[in-house]
Amino acid sequence: MTTQFKIHRLCVIGVGLIGGSVARALRAVNAVDHIVGAGRDSAHLEKAKQLGVIDEYNTDLAIAAKDADLILIATPLGAIQATLQAIKPSVTDKTIITDVGSAKECVLEQAKAVFGALPPRLVPGHPIAGTEKSGVEASFAELFQERRVILSPQVQTDPAALATVRDMWQACGASVIEMQAHHHDQVLAATSHLPHMLAYALVDTLARMDDSQEIFEFAAGGFRDFTRIASSDPAMWHDIFMANRKEIVKVLRAFNDDLHRLTKAVENGDSEFLKDTFTRAKKARDEFCG
Amino acid sequence: MTTQFKIHRLCVIGVGLIGGSVARALRAVNAVDHIVGAGRDSAHLEKAKQLGVIDEYNTDLAIAAKDADLILIATPLGAIQATLQAIKPSVTDKTIITDVGSAKECVLEQAKAVFGALPPRLVPGHPIAGTEKSGVEASFAELFQERRVILSPQVQTDPAALATVRDMWQACGASVIEMQAHHHDQVLAATSHLPHMLAYALVDTLARMDDSQEIFEFAAGGFRDFTRIASSDPAMWHDIFMANRKEIVKVLRAFNDDLHRLTKAVENGDSEFLKDTFTRAKKARDEFCG
Repeated sequence: MTTQFKIHRLCVIGVGLIGGSVARALRAVNAVDHIVGAGRDSAHLEKAKQLGVIDEYNTDLAIAAKDADLILIATPLGAIQATLQAIKPSVTDKTIITDVGSAKECVLEQAKAVFGALPPRLVPGHPIAGTEKSGVEASFAELFQERRVILSPQVQTDPAALATVRDMWQACGASVIEMQAHHHDQVLAATSHLPHMLAYALVDTLARMDDSQEIFEFAAGGFRDFTRIASSDPAMWHDIFMANRKEIVKVLRAFNDDLHRLTKAVENGDSEFLKDTFTRAKKARDEFCG
Repeated sequence: MTTQFKIHRLCVIGVGLIGGSVARALRAVNAVDHIVGAGRDSAHLEKAKQLGVIDEYNTDLAIAAKDADLILIATPLGAIQATLQAIKPSVTDKTIITDVGSAKECVLEQAKAVFGALPPRLVPGHPIAGTEKSGVEASFAELFQERRVILSPQVQTDPAALATVRDMWQACGASVIEMQAHHHDQVLAATSHLPHMLAYALVDTLARMDDSQEIFEFAAGGFRDFTRIASSDPAMWHDIFMANRKEIVKVLRAFNDDLHRLTKAVENGDSEFLKDTFTRAKKARDEFCG
């Protein structure tokens, strides 16, 4: 498969699961000529080069970003501001910048802080894809096939830059939709950030019980599925919870209220309340997730 | 594959996912001569007969249970006491009775209520296996392969009856361990009942949000895995929560406290607390669930 869309020089900052998979996906459809990797860890970048994911690398972000047509920032959220600061000297009025962060308002704020105003060729993005694994070894070209990517352009965003980032994700096999940054952060707090918090909290609650060894031994398949996301990278998720703090606290409070009501219902033996809730939940799950 | 162990006449009350899978598994290894199905719904039982899961059936539980060497009660927990009451006239001092309920103390209490004292040939059991599906159509012979079954014999339990129930589960491919009923209920409250409550609560919280349609649209793979168990049978889970109420409320409170602390940490931007918790949880998940 080939595509007419082509990036001449792509700079991927943070060549991990997401950054590495974008590089692989674009290569697979011949949509990129040259890929420069960048990051803090030269051993990791060397590995990425050996795997054929990138053509060259540099741990100096400004050098890596120099002359890039498109810079893809695929670092954890907590590193985005420092990354923008580091690449600033290499950003011209032709350079398109996008990112893959799981929260979007914070990226806009950080870009404003670094550049003084939002650069018109910055297109914040978020692919709704991933696994619980991390690192370039876990990356694969098909990660974005039939997945959605949310882009959050602003009024000042250059339409040509937006079109290029859209083309890039479509070349990776994803479908692209646009959503306001604030609304993105609300929706993702509910569908992604809250479940991750619950999975981490559940495993930690059980791990701190006296008979935790035995408890985990008797965990069945449902538990494994339910807690898979608690194997996700703690540092990455720390950054997400810090970055989308306000919206996450809101959904956590809503969930807490619901769980409190359910706990009361179990305690009081309120059959009807429990049956109604479970039936409603099953219906919603079956309808929406097939 | 064959086994030396053989049940002459097996009565399965509740021919659903679990009851049907036991019947299929025992047939597959030629460990049963004749299987009588029983339940409330004759259309469902007819279906089970057509599928070859049972040889005959009766909606009159006393008739179905008559002359059975082993009676397997695989109804929802809420129907066990009425089932014991119904089969009582057909239970002789040779009849072995076992069940598959997800809580064990309540079964002991109900048996005492029906029989006056615990019948020595009652062996409470719980296979740690299942899927989110229900009904005999979802049953399959391999469901218990390499799964664990917990038996909770009492001091007065007949060792020969215990050995037969143990042999039955081993013939199904399961490994059998013994655990006191009360301890079983504590462990399962943590590993199974709590995760199910969280999955139901999460889906219901999101379903009741204003933009629930959109929220579910943007749910990624992690959400699907995380909420799969919310597709489980609401009536069955209602019974489990009612039956194991005391232990479930304890773990719900412990979880609630932990989640409250995490919510506070997000609110206060307490990086260290979040990182420590996530790291501990990831370590525990990776260690225990491979």
